[in-house]
Amino acid sequence: MEETFVPFRGIKNDLKGRLLCYKQDWTGGIRAGIRILAPTTYIFFASAIPVISFGEQLERNTGGTLTAVQTLASTALCGIIHSVVGGQPLLILGVAEPTVLMYTFMFDFVKNRKDLGQKLFLAWAGWVCVWTALLLFLLAVLGACSIINRFTRVAGELFGLLIAMLFMQQAIRGVVEEFGIPQRENTKQTALQPSWRFGNGMFALVLSFGLLLTALRSRKARSWRYGTGWLRGFIADYGVPLMVLVWTAVSYIPVNDVPRGIPRRLFSPNPWSPGAYSNWTVIKDMLNVPPLYIVGAFIPATMIAVLYYFDHSVASQLAQQKEFNLKKPASYHYDLLLLGFLVILCGLIGIPPSNGVIPQSPMHTKSLATLKHQLLRNKLVLTARKSISKNSNLGQLYRNMQEAYNEMQTPLAYETPPALGLKELKESTIQLASSGGYIDAPIDKTVFDVDKDIDDLLPVEVKEQRLSNLLQASMVGCCVAAMPLLKKIPTSVLWGYFAFMAIESLPGNQFWERILLLFTAPSRRYKVLEDYHATFVETVPFKTIATFTLFQTTYLLLCFGLTWIPIAGVLFPLLIMLLVPVRQYVLPKFFKGAHLQDLDAAEYEEAPAIAFNVSFQNQDPQERITNFDNGEILDEIITRSRGEIRLTQSPKVTSSTPTSLEDIRPAHSLRISQRVYSPHVNELRGGTESQIEGKQT
Amino acid sequence: MEETFVPFRGIKNDLKGRLLCYKQDWTGGIRAGIRILAPTTYIFFASAIPVISFGEQLERNTGGTLTAVQTLASTALCGIIHSVVGGQPLLILGVAEPTVLMYTFMFDFVKNRKDLGQKLFLAWAGWVCVWTALLLFLLAVLGACSIINRFTRVAGELFGLLIAMLFMQQAIRGVVEEFGIPQRENTKQTALQPSWRFGNGMFALVLSFGLLLTALRSRKARSWRYGTGWLRGFIADYGVPLMVLVWTAVSYIPVNDVPRGIPRRLFSPNPWSPGAYSNWTVIKDMLNVPPLYIVGAFIPATMIAVLYYFDHSVASQLAQQKEFNLKKPASYHYDLLLLGFLVILCGLIGIPPSNGVIPQSPMHTKSLATLKHQLLRNKLVLTARKSISKNSNLGQLYRNMQEAYNEMQTPLAYETPPALGLKELKESTIQLASSGGYIDAPIDKTVFDVDKDIDDLLPVEVKEQRLSNLLQASMVGCCVAAMPLLKKIPTSVLWGYFAFMAIESLPGNQFWERILLLFTAPSRRYKVLEDYHATFVETVPFKTIATFTLFQTTYLLLCFGLTWIPIAGVLFPLLIMLLVPVRQYVLPKFFKGAHLQDLDAAEYEEAPAIAFNVSFQNQDPQERITNFDNGEILDEIITRSRGEIRLTQSPKVTSSTPTSLEDIRPAHSLRISQRVYSPHVNELRGGTESQIEGKQT
Repeated sequence: MEETFVPFRGIKNDLKGRLLCYKQDWTGGIRAGIRILAPTTYIFFASAIPVISFGEQLERNTGGTLTAVQTLASTALCGIIHSVVGGQPLLILGVAEPTVLMYTFMFDFVKNRKDLGQKLFLAWAGWVCVWTALLLFLLAVLGACSIINRFTRVAGELFGLLIAMLFMQQAIRGVVEEFGIPQRENTKQTALQPSWRFGNGMFALVLSFGLLLTALRSRKARSWRYGTGWLRGFIADYGVPLMVLVWTAVSYIPVNDVPRGIPRRLFSPNPWSPGAYSNWTVIKDMLNVPPLYIVGAFIPATMIAVLYYFDHSVASQLAQQKEFNLKKPASYHYDLLLLGFLVILCGLIGIPPSNGVIPQSPMHTKSLATLKHQLLRNKLVLTARKSISKNSNLGQLYRNMQEAYNEMQTPLAYETPPALGLKELKESTIQLASSGGYIDAPIDKTVFDVDKDIDDLLPVEVKEQRLSNLLQASMVGCCVAAMPLLKKIPTSVLWGYFAFMAIESLPGNQFWERILLLFTAPSRRYKVLEDYHATFVETVPFKTIATFTLFQTTYLLLCFGLTWIPIAGVLFPLLIMLLVPVRQYVLPKFFKGAHLQDLDAAEYEEAPAIAFNVSFQNQDPQERITNFDNGEILDEIITRSRGEIRLTQSPKVTSSTPTSLEDIRPAHSLRISQRVYSPHVNELRGGTESQIEGKQT
Repeated sequence: MEETFVPFRGIKNDLKGRLLCYKQDWTGGIRAGIRILAPTTYIFFASAIPVISFGEQLERNTGGTLTAVQTLASTALCGIIHSVVGGQPLLILGVAEPTVLMYTFMFDFVKNRKDLGQKLFLAWAGWVCVWTALLLFLLAVLGACSIINRFTRVAGELFGLLIAMLFMQQAIRGVVEEFGIPQRENTKQTALQPSWRFGNGMFALVLSFGLLLTALRSRKARSWRYGTGWLRGFIADYGVPLMVLVWTAVSYIPVNDVPRGIPRRLFSPNPWSPGAYSNWTVIKDMLNVPPLYIVGAFIPATMIAVLYYFDHSVASQLAQQKEFNLKKPASYHYDLLLLGFLVILCGLIGIPPSNGVIPQSPMHTKSLATLKHQLLRNKLVLTARKSISKNSNLGQLYRNMQEAYNEMQTPLAYETPPALGLKELKESTIQLASSGGYIDAPIDKTVFDVDKDIDDLLPVEVKEQRLSNLLQASMVGCCVAAMPLLKKIPTSVLWGYFAFMAIESLPGNQFWERILLLFTAPSRRYKVLEDYHATFVETVPFKTIATFTLFQTTYLLLCFGLTWIPIAGVLFPLLIMLLVPVRQYVLPKFFKGAHLQDLDAAEYEEAPAIAFNVSFQNQDPQERITNFDNGEILDEIITRSRGEIRLTQSPKVTSSTPTSLEDIRPAHSLRISQRVYSPHVNELRGGTESQIEGKQT
């Protein structure tokens, strides 16, 4: 993206780009059929559960002025609007923890002023939203998002880890509070006697750890060895919501003598209970706010504007990382403009505004990549089988598959040439075939193994559409009506879910992986090279990695510490924003440019994506097409490295220190990679299995 | 072992064999030094914890006549005697679940007879022991253990799984009881109010699952990626006792308002409390037992004799499986004779007798194999390094290592030629060297990589000695004195430990692995071939495996069901014994002989052990010698297959159906094994890394 600060140019470009594919955004989503429900429910839960819990938090912090009804309403409203008229439909909107922190601070400020008070809090917050929206308009129009390229990995990942820490903190705090007396409750209740509180706390531990462990396991169901493929696929797709149901059911098992209120469950007023509507008419009160406060509202508004500008852009950026090979354009400027409108809308109807959220937005893209992979694969396998059954030769097969692949591609005018994956497929297959001399012969398994080859060579692609976002936002909206049902969920299941989200957001975060590397025993560092790993592991000396990571960790702890300080905590978005100039002007004085490039990967986008090459063995094809769990490999690509995907021997060396052998010795990794890829190697060498077998025994 | 029924011949042979290595049994143990403590503590916990809990169970079932003090005393006494004068020192003795069942039944019989009553229970049990001992003498003298070869895998593994089920049942029952009111307690206690019972139960869930999960994890510490090698080794060796300590400490965290008795802790009288001595003088009461009952005691005695004959022999057999490559002879006959003496001794001093226990006995051998591997490896690496530093050539190096290896061997007169492992080492190394033409050149890494090659080619061997058994039995004895300390362990930690032992005993049980195979998705069965697996997976059709496994499962459930029936339950040892003739005469009518051979592995012992070949990459040698976790590979060999160890392509085909391709297709496994072994394959082919690399990219 060019850095253009000409007013409106960014917004115009964004609109032009997204309008070109707007129709396809809908048709593509509808054509995916029933499978779209897998990513939809996955994101719905990831979106709704924190929002409900943030609502509970707000209710406690604002004396009941705002509740889960309002946070759900905001998330649903903004989500629906964004999914229909927004720029980047991969971006998920919701009421986030920073918003809760801001609103808490604002309430604390307001409640003791006698000319405002709790009564006028929402009206004043409405003014804050108005100012925030104006600032966001200004930023959008002036093209502030042009500098998004300077929000490098170092800032984005730090922010991601900070959010994960906040989620984990909430999970731990939540479980600890299960042992205590909740604020709003009548302390005379049986359930609040010390003995029952102890039982409640212990039950909470069981439920939250139960949910956490089973949810983490269920995400890996595709690679389970037991159960049918259908079941494994279902568990992997719907396991997390399923586990929320299961553990909610478990929470109803103890009935004997156990009083009501154990375990504690979600608390929120029904949207139809008296008083729950009071906030919708807040616009009438807004003129009752004293003019001085209307002007003063500008101060928190600047903080919120900075926060939203950063948070919204980074969430969008993380949802559009290069390795997802997105085909449709980004839309930072226009989305920021739209966010302005949404903020003003929320302010006027007295609900807290939503913005782009982490980790839900990248989770959304990941789940859509799995979906696209399944769709592409099924189509190509079908085509290939048809061709083979007609005894076509390799050339014909390839033409047919190319056609099918193109059909699946987004028909966009300005698109990069498609068929990146299929081109590779052609090359490797044809190379093999010509070395065997049977390029025109009918195809058999040694030349082209349908299941294996298609799986190996399909590129990572994402089903980019608006339907999943619209559906999940609508489902969040339904939650408002389904409040009586939601209230059956124990709060402890919620805390387990928070911990789950924190842990789910870690893999692929290079910052996190570098922290782990610091704790890896020196004798085990070679194991990092066995897996897919980022360039820096090979090109940057260990000491530099360590120094860089320690700096980043210190910065992270500073940001985290800042959120704990009652009033200054509001400034934490500024500290994160500060990292952008620090990265650009300060860090280069302490680190070599090439190392910094590799660690921060500001330029890694230029490296071509390399296909993933795990060999699957030939197996009964009929069995495979029904049972094969086509998302498994992809799961690995995407979850193991949200960052770049790299083989151990990459043709590109980005750093000026080509080897850092003394630390992790790639010579080593070479041997290992040889082990992993050897079937391929042996194929290239034309070696047959019997030869190898003969020498092996 | 020949089937000899000539009186006393079996015992004489056993004695002759074991006397030859008796001195070495002690010197070998002492020479192992401090490292002997790892297997010792591991087995001590595995031995003491169930015995304490069985003691609690007995106390409830016998109205306090027998307690944990008696079961611990019996285990310690019999263990010490057996480790000093017993035949096979790998065998662990202890009071086992079947003994508890038998004693419970006997107490139920006695307590309502007015001419016996609770007072004479131990005296009568003494008579039962006398009869049992006489029967055991008879069995030992007549050479009943000669038919041990007919106790095939099918019976032994069924028994092993039955014990695992009983352990798991006890774990589940224990946790459930934590929610209820314990029998002996004063129900007016605060801790027994419904509210506190609920809390206690939930806390028990937390503690038992906590112990179970962390203990299972800690056993795999050697392959962790984080932490130093020393720490990982320590956790793997001592992790389980450590976790018992940790979770006991955790159980002390809740102090606020929590009454005494939560969580519940071990209950047992101190050995010095009044009345705890009453049983030691039981011999005086034995003549007060009416003569009719003295004769009648013969009936339970036959059951116990059958049980002990089977249990003791199978435990000994499982501790001496072929893949452990034991050097010292077995001693079934003599050990049975000694067991007779131990039973009479226990009977006369009024404590329940001990016998050989599963799964502790095979666990003992496994942990000693890990120890031996560490010792051998350290010695050889040292020798090799010394040779290389002196610039020896390959021939000299080999001679030096062979010498060092021989020094470590048990110097037994009748032994099979040692150096099985080193012979292979020589062949592969020399083959490589001569193909490279540098047989007399100084050694460098490409020819002989000290860490890699020694690790690859060391055979599985076991540190066979008496010290670990003596020490663990003595430690069990100390438990009697340390009762006040033991009482600090929460019962829920115990239940977690029971579940841990049940799960630890599963890997390597082919019966269990076949059950898992039935649940494996057809498309995933090839994954079984990727790991080390038994012959039958390749040679026996899936349908036959399924039928055989279903038969065995039904039989297991019958046995398990029988233990639930109050009085007939005593007959369950007979049902298991019945499996021996069933296997010999009935099964061959339903299954092909060759299939049965492979499934039951009655003859697999003839196949030569094949060395394990995982390639480790070259790494800084200084670092490796201190940090390398030399037990890790071995862990895998031993835990993954207590059964045979086999490569996918075995030179021996034992079955008449050479392929069962339609089920699991070995062609497939071939490719996979090729992947795993390719570095080796490539070495054999003389390929260098750069060649491979060139073609790979």
